[in-house]
Amino acid sequence: EIVAEVAAFFTPKRLAGKRVLITAGPTFEPIDPVRGITNISSGKMGFALARACADAGAEATLVAGPVAQATPRGVTRIDVQTALQMRDAVMRNVLAANVFIGVAAVADYRPATAADHKMKKAGGDGLTIELVQNPDILAEVASLPNPPFCVGFAAESQNLDEYAATKRAKKRVPLLVGNLVQDGMGGDDNRVVLFDDSGRHEVPHGPKDAVAEAIVEHLAGMLA
Amino acid sequence: EIVAEVAAFFTPKRLAGKRVLITAGPTFEPIDPVRGITNISSGKMGFALARACADAGAEATLVAGPVAQATPRGVTRIDVQTALQMRDAVMRNVLAANVFIGVAAVADYRPATAADHKMKKAGGDGLTIELVQNPDILAEVASLPNPPFCVGFAAESQNLDEYAATKRAKKRVPLLVGNLVQDGMGGDDNRVVLFDDSGRHEVPHGPKDAVAEAIVEHLAGMLA
Repeated sequence: EIVAEVAAFFTPKRLAGKRVLITAGPTFEPIDPVRGITNISSGKMGFALARACADAGAEATLVAGPVAQATPRGVTRIDVQTALQMRDAVMRNVLAANVFIGVAAVADYRPATAADHKMKKAGGDGLTIELVQNPDILAEVASLPNPPFCVGFAAESQNLDEYAATKRAKKRVPLLVGNLVQDGMGGDDNRVVLFDDSGRHEVPHGPKDAVAEAIVEHLAGMLA
Repeated sequence: EIVAEVAAFFTPKRLAGKRVLITAGPTFEPIDPVRGITNISSGKMGFALARACADAGAEATLVAGPVAQATPRGVTRIDVQTALQMRDAVMRNVLAANVFIGVAAVADYRPATAADHKMKKAGGDGLTIELVQNPDILAEVASLPNPPFCVGFAAESQNLDEYAATKRAKKRVPLLVGNLVQDGMGGDDNRVVLFDDSGRHEVPHGPKDAVAEAIVEHLAGMLA
């Protein structure tokens, strides 16, 4: 903790005066009062980015899905469960933000209806869950009349460059951070590639805190 | 930790010589490499019971789904993800056990097929997931030719007494611990009711460690 404070003190304040809004973690989409659909996101990358932004002098607000992570020093945290709650929290805070970084692994789909009471096992063998699409928070933010500078994340299990380029174009975000699921999701380390108008920039494999600092460095350069 | 060791030292060894196999936590049933169906079980109750059994002198083995809990001192831990993996781990260890306590909130259903690669959002609005039923681990253990003494858990959101009695009869377990989801699941405290041949026994509301000790006390009485 002391080491972290000293390191933060010596970090150049390249995001001073910037308000950064970040989402992190998975979302949990209820099937009934106890069950739900979620994903293996640990929230570590988003929390590391919130910390790196705060260390770089930004006013950082973190909208977090259900994760077991400590709030970084100096970061304002808003806890949510579902994609719809995350969208609401983002929309209430995005107008004040200069930068939006969507790190959360937001569930693309949610059950069409959540049962009020715990579903009982039926006699039969199978069951079907109807899912409906969740809002695309990053795309909504990027489509605002006066959008903040938007940074997206793409976690893929294959064809990273192709998917990342497509996602960046479709959502119209200036900076997209791509990573292979097998490199990062759930773990302590990550290896990412940054995609922007000038091309493809590899960040060396390392602890998520170091990767987050490299992303913030690149971001600060684009904002300068 | 020192307090815990002192408390353990003074705990009567009412389960001395008993081998207890316990399941804890949720299971995670993959939809694809990152998504899955799970539940809000924290694993706290199962871990508290493993600790209480070990403190009471038992040789405790804990089969745990994905949770962020520290292994209690003196407990052997086996980590699993899915219901099928939990069933395998239980079946490999149950023949040596005198007591089986199924605390895990095992998913009743799993996706019929898990995609090898992360599913991409389709153009359309909806999606359907086909689910198939998972094995009922507690019922399988209770149906073994020479079953260990079986303790089941029932977490319900309503009609606790009725569901618990039905579950105890159907699975043929001598002791069933019932709790209302809203009282316990995910939290630090719990309030449970024990159902056995002699009727219904309320355990006072309290921290999960204290509730676990009361359950072990009752269990030891039944084994004596």
